[in-house]
Amino acid sequence: MNILLVGASGTVGQAVAKELEQTHTIIRAGRNGADVQVDLTSEDSIRHMYETIGRVDAVISTAGSTHFGPLSEMTPADNQKSIDSKIKGQVNLVLLGLDYVNDGGSFTLTSGILMDDPIKEGASAALANGAIKGFVTGAAIEMPRGIRINNVSPNVLVEALDSYGPYFRGYEAVPGERVALAYVKSVEGAQTGQTYEVY
Amino acid sequence: MNILLVGASGTVGQAVAKELEQTHTIIRAGRNGADVQVDLTSEDSIRHMYETIGRVDAVISTAGSTHFGPLSEMTPADNQKSIDSKIKGQVNLVLLGLDYVNDGGSFTLTSGILMDDPIKEGASAALANGAIKGFVTGAAIEMPRGIRINNVSPNVLVEALDSYGPYFRGYEAVPGERVALAYVKSVEGAQTGQTYEVY
Repeated sequence: MNILLVGASGTVGQAVAKELEQTHTIIRAGRNGADVQVDLTSEDSIRHMYETIGRVDAVISTAGSTHFGPLSEMTPADNQKSIDSKIKGQVNLVLLGLDYVNDGGSFTLTSGILMDDPIKEGASAALANGAIKGFVTGAAIEMPRGIRINNVSPNVLVEALDSYGPYFRGYEAVPGERVALAYVKSVEGAQTGQTYEVY
Repeated sequence: MNILLVGASGTVGQAVAKELEQTHTIIRAGRNGADVQVDLTSEDSIRHMYETIGRVDAVISTAGSTHFGPLSEMTPADNQKSIDSKIKGQVNLVLLGLDYVNDGGSFTLTSGILMDDPIKEGASAALANGAIKGFVTGAAIEMPRGIRINNVSPNVLVEALDSYGPYFRGYEAVPGERVALAYVKSVEGAQTGQTYEVY
């Protein structure tokens, strides 16, 4: 399959690429250093990306950043960062990409464990995670042309502990290769509307 | 208790007011015809509302509209309506209202069944519902001064079937007075971080 991987240079993206590139053609998209550049916070940038690459069999998003910070200090503007990137970025990848995915293809988005198992300073991330799960549940039942949509909700990755470890004390970090399996199941399987929790 | 009820004139809001006004003082807020007017899509309007009413013991939101329409025709601008109203409106009620809630008080937000049990044309609503559930889960563990936060996720109300019935064919509509109980539990109980599913 031809698979568009948005967020390819991130920790999850790298693990997914490593697994899927063994049997598929991966088109890497991201803010920089990728096959095609895209800024998920810009609808025009998303449209331009799709026009550049044309049709694919699967779109995977491992992209989208969120605001981390104490709830008492969080401003609407702080929270907006999560909305613009992880929520709208990923949802617009679907809304603007439907015509670029082949019949029977798939979208796979990414949420995260914080919507189920919260940490301090993670309320805005939990918001974004829950939004993606809800959207995937709702969108799956009316995707056109047999296109499927799923959501992978990973725990913190072993490979991300250097930067996120202090936030996730006591969490049983999961190896990237285990998280990548959920994306393989979404892309190569037949399920839709699922949230694969890799906790 | 002094309870601020945002969305008081809506179907859920009216049911909640009827139940709570028996033993509490209700301050009704909404777009029009209320004790205090507020436009949830405007941060300034939310700030002005809190400055007008001062401190309360509980804030309930039964407000927030969402876009309904076929997924294949949904534009980012359509989806933005749900984000601005049901997601940001409710979350900003919390972020901008923390200083106006007394110690040990509570926030109660509203999501909805579509995040769990989807209908056609409801993907944007499901997104908003999931976001609220995620935020409440995340925010609960770091609310200051013993303030709690919960989320009520109602099925379609019997009283709303005239307008929403065609969307919710086969759903077992719930009476408003049953939905109202979940808000009472949230306000008068001691739980936090909960999603009360009234399905």
